[in-house]
Amino acid sequence: MANSQYEYVKQFEQPDRLLPNTWIVIRIDGRGFTKFASKYGFEKPNDRRALELMNAAARAVMSELPDITIAYGVSDEYSFVFHKSCSLFDRRSSKLVSTIVSTFTAYYVHFWPSHFPNTPLSPPLPSFDGRAVCYPTVQNLQDYMSWRQVDCHINNLYNTTFWALIQQGGMDATEAEKKLKGTLAADKNEILFSQFGINYNNEPEMYKKGSVVFRDYEPVDPGTHNATAEVDNMARPVQQSKTQAENDKKKRAKAPIVVEHISIINRDFWDRRPWLLSNKPGKIPKEP
Amino acid sequence: MANSQYEYVKQFEQPDRLLPNTWIVIRIDGRGFTKFASKYGFEKPNDRRALELMNAAARAVMSELPDITIAYGVSDEYSFVFHKSCSLFDRRSSKLVSTIVSTFTAYYVHFWPSHFPNTPLSPPLPSFDGRAVCYPTVQNLQDYMSWRQVDCHINNLYNTTFWALIQQGGMDATEAEKKLKGTLAADKNEILFSQFGINYNNEPEMYKKGSVVFRDYEPVDPGTHNATAEVDNMARPVQQSKTQAENDKKKRAKAPIVVEHISIINRDFWDRRPWLLSNKPGKIPKEP
Amino acid sequence: MANSQYEYVKQFEQPDRLLPNTWIVIRIDGRGFTKFASKYGFEKPNDRRALELMNAAARAVMSELPDITIAYGVSDEYSFVFHKSCSLFDRRSSKLVSTIVSTFTAYYVHFWPSHFPNTPLSPPLPSFDGRAVCYPTVQNLQDYMSWRQVDCHINNLYNTTFWALIQQGGMDATEAEKKLKGTLAADKNEILFSQFGINYNNEPEMYKKGSVVFRDYEPVDPGTHNATAEVDNMARPVQQSKTQAENDKKKRAKAPIVVEHISIINRDFWDRRPWLLSNKPGKIPKEP
Amino acid sequence: MANSQYEYVKQFEQPDRLLPNTWIVIRIDGRGFTKFASKYGFEKPNDRRALELMNAAARAVMSELPDITIAYGVSDEYSFVFHKSCSLFDRRSSKLVSTIVSTFTAYYVHFWPSHFPNTPLSPPLPSFDGRAVCYPTVQNLQDYMSWRQVDCHINNLYNTTFWALIQQGGMDATEAEKKLKGTLAADKNEILFSQFGINYNNEPEMYKKGSVVFRDYEPVDPGTHNATAEVDNMARPVQQSKTQAENDKKKRAKAPIVVEHISIINRDFWDRRPWLLSNKPGKIPKEP
Repeated sequence: MANSQYEYVKQFEQPDRLLPNTWIVIRIDGRGFTKFASKYGFEKPNDRRALELMNAAARAVMSELPDITIAYGVSDEYSFVFHKSCSLFDRRSSKLVSTIVSTFTAYYVHFWPSHFPNTPLSPPLPSFDGRAVCYPTVQNLQDYMSWRQVDCHINNLYNTTFWALIQQGGMDATEAEKKLKGTLAADKNEILFSQFGINYNNEPEMYKKGSVVFRDYEPVDPGTHNATAEVDNMARPVQQSKTQAENDKKKRAKAPIVVEHISIINRDFWDRRPWLLSNKPGKIPKEP
Repeated sequence: MANSQYEYVKQFEQPDRLLPNTWIVIRIDGRGFTKFASKYGFEKPNDRRALELMNAAARAVMSELPDITIAYGVSDEYSFVFHKSCSLFDRRSSKLVSTIVSTFTAYYVHFWPSHFPNTPLSPPLPSFDGRAVCYPTVQNLQDYMSWRQVDCHINNLYNTTFWALIQQGGMDATEAEKKLKGTLAADKNEILFSQFGINYNNEPEMYKKGSVVFRDYEPVDPGTHNATAEVDNMARPVQQSKTQAENDKKKRAKAPIVVEHISIINRDFWDRRPWLLSNKPGKIPKEP
Repeated sequence: MANSQYEYVKQFEQPDRLLPNTWIVIRIDGRGFTKFASKYGFEKPNDRRALELMNAAARAVMSELPDITIAYGVSDEYSFVFHKSCSLFDRRSSKLVSTIVSTFTAYYVHFWPSHFPNTPLSPPLPSFDGRAVCYPTVQNLQDYMSWRQVDCHINNLYNTTFWALIQQGGMDATEAEKKLKGTLAADKNEILFSQFGINYNNEPEMYKKGSVVFRDYEPVDPGTHNATAEVDNMARPVQQSKTQAENDKKKRAKAPIVVEHISIINRDFWDRRPWLLSNKPGKIPKEP
Repeated sequence: MANSQYEYVKQFEQPDRLLPNTWIVIRIDGRGFTKFASKYGFEKPNDRRALELMNAAARAVMSELPDITIAYGVSDEYSFVFHKSCSLFDRRSSKLVSTIVSTFTAYYVHFWPSHFPNTPLSPPLPSFDGRAVCYPTVQNLQDYMSWRQVDCHINNLYNTTFWALIQQGGMDATEAEKKLKGTLAADKNEILFSQFGINYNNEPEMYKKGSVVFRDYEPVDPGTHNATAEVDNMARPVQQSKTQAENDKKKRAKAPIVVEHISIINRDFWDRRPWLLSNKPGKIPKEP
């Protein structure tokens, strides 16, 4: 039984290679996580266990896919960044998106019991959707990352105040919403401080800044590198010797993957970690 | 802190709506499953537990996404079909692909312990990639499904013979490969029968036909419906009354999702189940 | 001087093949034709010379590209239809669109002097833009064609009345617009008839129906063919013998390309000309 | 007669916006120009009239579309470059490609009689196809331009030698081809010089370098600007005041559009004309 009469159906597959020499960002989002969070009793406004589970899954994704340069997570979303020189899966969009979403989901479900030991998962299970976006320049990429981190800040300040009004202030959701309508950041800070004695600055960094995941090498002095200019010039496909590629791979495998809660809006973050933009592994930090 | 200066990055998102009035097939594949199968000692040429785990995950996906009409699985791949009138997620490709891949993965990991009770999962975890393809006509869709089922048959006959030569015939892989090179189906049947006393026809249907997953209503007499012609004429967006839509939804939720190992190449399969092409729920079968 | 160091730039070209087995419609539109029409003193509401120039250019396009099945023109727009089995230029969208737009423009400029002998073209020259759209079924395609023809009718009835009010009724544009606001077709017919003695039904067919361009063979009796069902079933790539393909080509080259002003909304039009949907050339009409 | 039942067909139009913040190159090519050249007796290896007609059409295109930054032509092809900040037609690919192709064709046909006064055009008329490609960085864009200019050089050296062997050396095409097979640039130069007394360096610049079309302002001293770095940093959408935008527009309209035959591979070309990369109009050169 030959299969040839049906094989023409392969012609209907459309190519989906992402434009070369652009940064690929894959953002995934929890599907129906409001309901999901309520089913498993996530704490409001932030559930530390849930966020740490997200971070653990993200670290595992980065560990399985060394082509990922950096990831940023907040709430039930995570953005994974592939370097603009990346040629993984020939840059096919569906393949990149589905692989990341699938790997993330696998670890989320697998790690669940260690973060929520008392509430086993039951159907419907948690799931994520994802999409790919290309950014031509370092500035565009950094602006994307800043966009997510500013969003984290805005939402967290709002949610912290909103839930304080409810949990400590005794309001219901409608009242709290009404109270916050039209308020500026300063107003919310003031409500938190004067009504509830909460200094927003002292809130946990993970809640205020989100989570930045990356391979950690020895940081360099800011000002000694100009990775941005360098990398925007990396226009032609990189030709690495096999030895060099192997060395880079080994270094990447050795580098610890860290999760930090710091500003990525600040240029300093990028200047001290030139490997994030250059894609050249740095110096492995010495064990203490 | 307003977010407006960064929001321009949203403009880089490219729309990816699939062409309306076409059948959407989303095929997912296990990533690196040769290695994975070996790590967990999958039996050769078919591991019943692994296949049943795939089927359980596929059933769960169909249960969570009632828009899926039919699914077909073989080995570590599964194809999910959305009806051509489907407007789920506004037909966005990334969203459809990532949701299916994520949901499938979640259930695969979640159901693992009940199918492999003695071999707990450990990193690297199983994962899947996926892609969407559009088919304009019923014939194209059926040809796609036939293509996968013929492929199942060809591979299974080959693998059954290959592993018989090794497991029972004492050959190594190179010898078995050489022996089978250039053989036709009849030759393989003959080797199986004369050398190993295996009648290929008696092999389990799941191995020979793969797995077909669909909502089961009362089958109709073939010849009483002409769903193909009807559905190719369903060119304009369907306008359903709310009541009708609600009724359909309820019926779909009530219909049992079955896994069968039968021919979908045979037109009879489609003729007896007109709801697969018409997208109109059939009669719920009476409990026995 | 080898060119290899620069050749990587070819990798940035993205494929744009249109989905197989779908009807390809390429619609072109005059750019800035309001201004252009005024520069060359086009008559209002319809300029016969300008429409006939459009039709002449469209006929020439169909003559140069035998893969085109049918075309429909109204005002400064024209839609060209490629059969769903068409594989011209490997169905690359840019190539199809640009070739049609360029060929049309060439003939429009070239034929200009014979339609406007007293007003030679001067920069800025007339130009057209275009786009491709895919339609999966015959019904979708016919609905597209009907959409354009209904649009022609609606606009022409409006314009005929609008310009009667101005040219014969002495109104200015604002008054005429106000007068017509909210009127139905019957109201406009009534205005035309009672105020200006114009029976809209007697207006030239070209203005009321637009222009349909196609290869003319001997029409068949309606009801003897069911081209729609046949063609929706033509799902698999057509395998023609070389002789057959050559014969078809010759027949197409011999068939006169006609411009008619008739209803394509009426199914009868398609039923009597089954070659439009089947893509099989009909019988060449005998010379009178 | 309302049109609403058919309007759903508009949903089949797929968006085709090109990625923001990337350089858009639209390359057009003559269709079947070997045959066309032979029909009108183009001289070999280069026909000055035909090349100057191409250049005249390109200049007219740039004049009608001030968003075009630079164009480069060789033989029967032309590449038009839109600045990466360009938002013309909302960056829709089909619209950009078809507009350029149509405008170019219109002028090619219109200008034909002044370049070929004795050989009027007759059907089939000349036509062009086109496609759009995006380049993320200045380096990619310059590499693209260099690729075309190196190609011009390679082809022209080959063709000049090939036709010398035929026209002056009395060879036929097969002999000339054989003679040139495997030769390097130096070999061809040597053949030209020793056999035919032709010093390739003295060949017309238009043949050796192709044609570069751009708006001409006063050149600046190289080294005083770093347009490349500047423009790669122009990542965010430009916010111009209306006055500024109007001023820029006026300056562009005043700037003469020149056609030069010079090296664009040399960085000096770009350094002296920073407006090509910055998109900021320079100083209008004083009349002599």
